Amino acid sequence: MAARTELGIGMVGYAFMGRAHSLAWQAVSRVFDVPLVPRLAAVCGLDENAARAAAGRFGWAAVETDWRALIAREDVDLIDICAPGDLHAPVAVAALAAGKHVLCEKPLANTLEEAEAMNAAADAASAGGARAMTGFNYRRVPALALARRLVADGRLGVLRHLRAVYLQDWLADPAAPMTWRMQAERAGSGALGDLGAHIVDLARYLTGDEITGVSALSATFVESRRWPGDPETGGSGPGRVTVDDAVVFTARLASGALASFEATRCAAGRKNGLRIELNGTAGSLAFDLERLNELELYEAGAGDGDLSGFRRVLVTEAAHPYLDAWWPPGHTLGWEHTFTHQARDLLTAIGNGEQPRPSFADGLAVQRVLHAVQESAAHGNSWESVK
Amino acid sequence: MAARTELGIGMVGYAFMGRAHSLAWQAVSRVFDVPLVPRLAAVCGLDENAARAAAGRFGWAAVETDWRALIAREDVDLIDICAPGDLHAPVAVAALAAGKHVLCEKPLANTLEEAEAMNAAADAASAGGARAMTGFNYRRVPALALARRLVADGRLGVLRHLRAVYLQDWLADPAAPMTWRMQAERAGSGALGDLGAHIVDLARYLTGDEITGVSALSATFVESRRWPGDPETGGSGPGRVTVDDAVVFTARLASGALASFEATRCAAGRKNGLRIELNGTAGSLAFDLERLNELELYEAGAGDGDLSGFRRVLVTEAAHPYLDAWWPPGHTLGWEHTFTHQARDLLTAIGNGEQPRPSFADGLAVQRVLHAVQESAAHGNSWESVK
Amino acid sequence: MAARTELGIGMVGYAFMGRAHSLAWQAVSRVFDVPLVPRLAAVCGLDENAARAAAGRFGWAAVETDWRALIAREDVDLIDICAPGDLHAPVAVAALAAGKHVLCEKPLANTLEEAEAMNAAADAASAGGARAMTGFNYRRVPALALARRLVADGRLGVLRHLRAVYLQDWLADPAAPMTWRMQAERAGSGALGDLGAHIVDLARYLTGDEITGVSALSATFVESRRWPGDPETGGSGPGRVTVDDAVVFTARLASGALASFEATRCAAGRKNGLRIELNGTAGSLAFDLERLNELELYEAGAGDGDLSGFRRVLVTEAAHPYLDAWWPPGHTLGWEHTFTHQARDLLTAIGNGEQPRPSFADGLAVQRVLHAVQESAAHGNSWESVK
Amino acid sequence: MAARTELGIGMVGYAFMGRAHSLAWQAVSRVFDVPLVPRLAAVCGLDENAARAAAGRFGWAAVETDWRALIAREDVDLIDICAPGDLHAPVAVAALAAGKHVLCEKPLANTLEEAEAMNAAADAASAGGARAMTGFNYRRVPALALARRLVADGRLGVLRHLRAVYLQDWLADPAAPMTWRMQAERAGSGALGDLGAHIVDLARYLTGDEITGVSALSATFVESRRWPGDPETGGSGPGRVTVDDAVVFTARLASGALASFEATRCAAGRKNGLRIELNGTAGSLAFDLERLNELELYEAGAGDGDLSGFRRVLVTEAAHPYLDAWWPPGHTLGWEHTFTHQARDLLTAIGNGEQPRPSFADGLAVQRVLHAVQESAAHGNSWESVK
Repeated sequence: MAARTELGIGMVGYAFMGRAHSLAWQAVSRVFDVPLVPRLAAVCGLDENAARAAAGRFGWAAVETDWRALIAREDVDLIDICAPGDLHAPVAVAALAAGKHVLCEKPLANTLEEAEAMNAAADAASAGGARAMTGFNYRRVPALALARRLVADGRLGVLRHLRAVYLQDWLADPAAPMTWRMQAERAGSGALGDLGAHIVDLARYLTGDEITGVSALSATFVESRRWPGDPETGGSGPGRVTVDDAVVFTARLASGALASFEATRCAAGRKNGLRIELNGTAGSLAFDLERLNELELYEAGAGDGDLSGFRRVLVTEAAHPYLDAWWPPGHTLGWEHTFTHQARDLLTAIGNGEQPRPSFADGLAVQRVLHAVQESAAHGNSWESVK
Repeated sequence: MAARTELGIGMVGYAFMGRAHSLAWQAVSRVFDVPLVPRLAAVCGLDENAARAAAGRFGWAAVETDWRALIAREDVDLIDICAPGDLHAPVAVAALAAGKHVLCEKPLANTLEEAEAMNAAADAASAGGARAMTGFNYRRVPALALARRLVADGRLGVLRHLRAVYLQDWLADPAAPMTWRMQAERAGSGALGDLGAHIVDLARYLTGDEITGVSALSATFVESRRWPGDPETGGSGPGRVTVDDAVVFTARLASGALASFEATRCAAGRKNGLRIELNGTAGSLAFDLERLNELELYEAGAGDGDLSGFRRVLVTEAAHPYLDAWWPPGHTLGWEHTFTHQARDLLTAIGNGEQPRPSFADGLAVQRVLHAVQESAAHGNSWESVK
Repeated sequence: MAARTELGIGMVGYAFMGRAHSLAWQAVSRVFDVPLVPRLAAVCGLDENAARAAAGRFGWAAVETDWRALIAREDVDLIDICAPGDLHAPVAVAALAAGKHVLCEKPLANTLEEAEAMNAAADAASAGGARAMTGFNYRRVPALALARRLVADGRLGVLRHLRAVYLQDWLADPAAPMTWRMQAERAGSGALGDLGAHIVDLARYLTGDEITGVSALSATFVESRRWPGDPETGGSGPGRVTVDDAVVFTARLASGALASFEATRCAAGRKNGLRIELNGTAGSLAFDLERLNELELYEAGAGDGDLSGFRRVLVTEAAHPYLDAWWPPGHTLGWEHTFTHQARDLLTAIGNGEQPRPSFADGLAVQRVLHAVQESAAHGNSWESVK
Repeated sequence: MAARTELGIGMVGYAFMGRAHSLAWQAVSRVFDVPLVPRLAAVCGLDENAARAAAGRFGWAAVETDWRALIAREDVDLIDICAPGDLHAPVAVAALAAGKHVLCEKPLANTLEEAEAMNAAADAASAGGARAMTGFNYRRVPALALARRLVADGRLGVLRHLRAVYLQDWLADPAAPMTWRMQAERAGSGALGDLGAHIVDLARYLTGDEITGVSALSATFVESRRWPGDPETGGSGPGRVTVDDAVVFTARLASGALASFEATRCAAGRKNGLRIELNGTAGSLAFDLERLNELELYEAGAGDGDLSGFRRVLVTEAAHPYLDAWWPPGHTLGWEHTFTHQARDLLTAIGNGEQPRPSFADGLAVQRVLHAVQESAAHGNSWESVK
C-alpha cells in the first residue's frame, strides 16, 4: 500500500466544535479513501493548560496559544477555525494571506463586511492554490445530500414551497443563565446566526436557487439573564442579552417559490429540530434532523396514484451519498459523522485541486440573507431585497 | 322519557358542507343530550330536482328553491348557511332580521364590509334572542378543545411561538381544472379564506390572544386553468384564476409571541395537513389534522427532566372534551364528527339562552386578519396592523 | 326518485355494540346507495325501561323484552345480535329457523359446538334465502380492505410473515373491577375471543389463506377482582376471574408462512392497538388501528431500489374501498364507520341475493382457531392442528 | 496530565465487525475517561495482504496470520474476537488459558457445548485476573441502558409482557446469493443466532429475569441459493441453505410474564428492525433500533391520567447513560457508537478489576435459550424448558 500524502491541520478552538472536528480528522481516513491524510499538527487556545489537555485527549501533536503562530507553522497546511464568530475574519484572512487552506465554522462572520473581506481574501488566495470552505456541515447529512440529488434530478417538478425551521429550547426557561452567545459583540447574532444560517444555507443548497428578498420578525423574550457566577466569564450579576432569542421570516426565491424560515432557542421540547420541507408540482421532500437517517419522499402518483404517500426512506443504503463507506443498510449514523463527511469532501477537493463547496462565496451569500433579515427586523418587518 | 323540544332547521346548500351538516343534524341527538332536538325542516337549492334528491337522501322534510322562502317558513327556527361565500351576507342578514338563529359556514364573508354588516345584524338580533355562530368546526376537534383547555390552565407557561400551516395539494398539478373556487367574485379568496381562515381562528381560540399585525406573501402559481368541459359551468376553455394558490405570513400576538401561518393548495402529498404548534416557557403542544385523534404534549421536566419528551395523547378518553358521549378509549373519531360537536354546542347554547362561540364577532375578527393579509400581499409584503 | 325497498331490523342488545349498530343503521342509506333501506323496527332488551330509553334515543320504532317475540315480528326481516356471547347461538339458530336474516357480533359463539350448530343453521336456512353474517367489522376499515386488495393482486409476492397483536390496557391495573367479561360462562373467553378473534379473522381475510396449527401461552395475571359494588351485578365482594387476561401464540399458514398473534388487556398505554404486518418476497404492509386511516406499504425497489421505503398511504382517496361515498382526500373516518360499511355490505348482499362475507362459515373457521389455541394453552403449549 | 496505562489489543478478523471494533478502539479514549488506554497492537487474518491493508487503514501496529501467534504476543493483553462463530471457542479458550482478557462477538458460540467450555475457561481464568466479555453491543445503546434503569427502578410496576422482533430483509429476495452465513457448519444457525441472540440477551438485560421455556417455529423459505460466482468462495453453482431464514417463538419468564420473539432476514422493508416493547402494571417502554436515539415511555396516569400517552424521549441528555461524554441535547449518536460504549465499559471493568457484563455466563445463558429454540423447532414446536 503506497504511502498517502499528508495534510497538516492546525485548529483554532477546542470546545464543542473543536471536539467534533478533532474526531472527524481522526476518523476520516479510516473510513474513506481520501487523497490526503490529515495530520493533527497543532491546536491553538488562549489557555495553554486547557489546550494541552485537549491536545492530549484528541491527539494533536503540538499546542499554540497565539493563532498567528499557528498560521506560521511550517507543518500546518490548513487552518480549521472553530473559535467564536469575532475571530473568524481575522484568522481566516491571515491564514489565506499566508497561503494556507481554511475551513471556517459557520456562520462565516459576524457582519456582512467581514464576510465580504473574507470572500475577497479567498478569491485572492485561490490563485496560489489555497482553498477556503465554510463549515455548513448539514450539507453532509446523507439524507440531505440525497434530497439535493433528487431535486436536481427534477423529481419534485417545479418548486412551489420551502419551509424550514430550526427549533431548540435551551433558552425556553427564563432562568437559563447568561453566556457569551447572548452578547452581540461576540456572537454577532443569536438564533439567527447560530441556527438560521444553517437553514438558509440548506435552502440554497437543496434548491440550487437564491433568496431574493425577506421580511422578518425578531424577538428577545428575556432581555436580562444572570451570569452563572464564574468570575472569569462575567461574575454572577445580571447581563444584558443583546441578540435575538428567535426570528421568523418569509422569503421569495428567484423561481417564484414561497419560503418561510424560523430559528429559535425557545421552542420547549425541540432539542435539535431542524425541519425542512420542499413541495413541487411533482413531489415533496421532508426532513427532520432529530431523525437524520430518514428522508420522507412523496412522488405524485401516476396510474398508481391511489397508493401514493410519503415514503420513509432510511438513508443507509450503499447507493446513498457517503454510505458506501459505512455499514450495512439500517445501521444508522449520528450527528458527528457530518463532520467526517465534511473532512472527506474538503480533503478530496484540495487533493484534486478543486474548489470545495460550500465556498466562502456560499458563506457570503448566506450572510447577505442574514443581514437582510436583521435589517427587516430592525425596520418594522419591512421587505428587504437581498443584494 | 319526556318529549324534548324541537328546533326546526332550514339549510341553504346541499353540496360538500351540506352533506356534512345533514349527517350532523341527524346524529347529534342520538349521541348527545341536547336541550333541543333538531328537526330537518327544509333544504334550499336553486336546482329543484337536485335539492329534492338531497332531501330524500338526507331526510329533509321539504324543499325550497328561494332562500327568502326558506327564511319565511314558520317551521324553520335556524338557518344553516352552507352556500358559497357570496351568499353568506345576504342570507345571514335577512335571517337575523327575521329573528331566526343562524349558523354560517366559514369564512364569515367574502369581504370585511360584509362581515361587519353580518356582525352588526347579529348584534341587533341578539336582543330578540336570535343567536349567530360561525362554523369554524375545527374548534370541535376534541384534541384541539383539549389543547385550548391546557393553554388556558397555564400548562405551557408564557407563550412564545405559534406556527400553523394548512397544506393541501389538489392544485399542485398545473393541469388541475378550473372551478368557481378559483374565481374571486365567488370565493372571495383562494387558500387564504378556505384554509387560512381555519388556522387564524384556531390561533385566536387556542391562545385566547389577538393577532396585532401581519406581513404576507401570496402567489398564484398557475394563472390560467381550463374549465372541465361542462357547458353549464363555463365550457371547456381557459379560465383566469383570480385568487391565491398560496399565502404565507408572519404575525405578532398581543402578548409578544411570534407567529407564522401558511395556507396552500399546492403542497404535493399533503391532503389535509392542518398542523399547529405552540411553544411556551413551560411546555409545548403539537397537532396534525391528518391524525386528529392525537395531541402531542411536552411538559418541561422538573427533577424528572431527563425523561421529558413529546407525549402522544390519544384523545379518546371520557375525560376529554366531547368524548364521554362516544366510545371506549382508543376508538377513534373522524373528521365528520366535528360537525356533530358543533351542532351539540350550538343547540346547547340556544337552549340555554347563551351566546354560542365562535360568534359572528369571532368570524369578523378572523376576517380582519384575512383583510390585513391581503393588504400586505398587495403592497409588497408591507407590515399591516390588524384593526 | 323511486322509493327504495325497506328491510326491517330487529336488534338484540343496546349497549356498546348496540349503540354502534344503531348509528350505522341510521346512517348507511344517507351515505351509500344501497338496494335496501334499513327500517329500525324494534330493539330487544330484558330491562324494558332501559330498552325504551334506547329506542327513543336511537330511533327504534318498538321495544321487545323477549328475543323470541322479536324474531316473531312480521315487520322484522333481519335479526342483529349485539348481546353477550352466550345468547349468540340460541338467538341466531331460532332466527334462521324462522327464515330471518342474521347479523351476529363476533366472536360467533362461546364454544366450537355452538359455532358448528350456528353454521349448520345458516346452511339450512340459505336455501330459503336467509343470509347470515358474522360481525368482524374490521374487514370494513378502508385501509384493511385496501390491504386485502393489494395482497390479492400479488403486490407483496409470496407471503413469508404475518404478525398481529391486539393490545388494550383496561385490565393492566390489578385494581380494575370485576365484570361479566371476566366470567367464562358469560364471555366464553377473555382477550382471546374479544380481541384475538379479530386478528385471526383479519389474518384469514388479508391472506386468503388458512391457519393450520397453533401453539399458545395464556395467562390470567390477576385471578380475583372485586365487583364494583352494584348488588345486581354481583355485589362488592371478590370475584374469580375465569378467563384469560392475555394470550400469545405462534401459527403456520397453509402456504408455509410463519405467523404470530397476541391479544391482551394488560398492555399499559395501548388503548386499541390492533397492529398487523405482512411481509412477502416483493413487499410489506403494516397497519395500526389507532391510526385507522393510514396504511403503510413497502414495495421492494427495482432500478429505483435506493428510494424504497415504507409509504404512509392516507386511505381517504375516492379510489380506495368505501371512500367514494365520503369526503375529499385527507378528511378522515372514525372507528364507528366500520359498522356503516358493514351495514352497506350486508344490505347489498341481501339485496343482490348473494352470500355476505364474513359468513357464519368464516366465523366458524375463526372459532376453530380459538379452540385450538385454548387446547394448546391448556396442554402446556402443545402444538395443535386446526381441524 | 499523567500518562494513562495502556492495554494492548489483538483483534482476530477485520471485516464488518472488525471495522466497527477498530473505530471504537481508536475513539474510546478521546471521548471517555477510561482507566486504560487501548493500544492497537496487532490484527490477525488468514490473508496477509488483506490484513496488512486493514492494519494500515485502521491503525493496527502489526499483523499476524495465525491467531495462536497473536495470543502469544507479549504486547497483546486482550484478544478481541471478530471472526466467524466456529472460531469463537478455540480462540477464546486458548486466549483465556494464556491469561489474556477476551472480548468475543455474539453469539458466544455455535453450539451449547462450545459455550459451556468457553464459560468454564472464563471461570478458570478469572482467578488470574483475566476478564471475558460477550459482545452484545446493543446493551450499550443509551436508550436501552436507560430502559434497563427505568425497569430496575420499578417504573413499569410488575412486568406482564415482552415482545421483541429483529427484522431484516436481505434474504427476502429469493434470488439473493448464497454466503457462508447460510451454512450451519460455519455460522451455527441463521437468523436465530445472528439476530435472535440480540433480542434474547436484551430480554434478560432489560428485565433482569430469566426465560424458563420456549416454543418455536422455524423456516428456511429458500432452500437453495446460488453462490455469487467467486471460485474461492464456492463457485457459481447452487448451494444448500442449512440454517434458518426465520424463527418465531413464545416464551415464559420466571416472573410469569409472557414473551414473544421473532428473528428473520425476510421481512421486506425492515432494514434493522430490532423492536422491543415491555408492558407492566404501571407503564410501558418501546424501542426501535432504526431510531436508536429514541425511547418511548408510557407511565399510567394518576390524577393526571387523561393526559397520559407514550412519550418520545430523545435519549441525548447528559443525564442519560453514556451521554455526558458526547454532544448537547438533540445531537444524535449512530449505530457504531455502541461499540465505543462497549469498549469503555470493558476497559473500565478491567481497570477496576471487576467482572464486565455481559459476561461469558451471560453469553451462555443466551446460548441455552437458542438451544431450546432449536430443539423445539426440530420437535414440532414442542415446549422446551431452558435448563
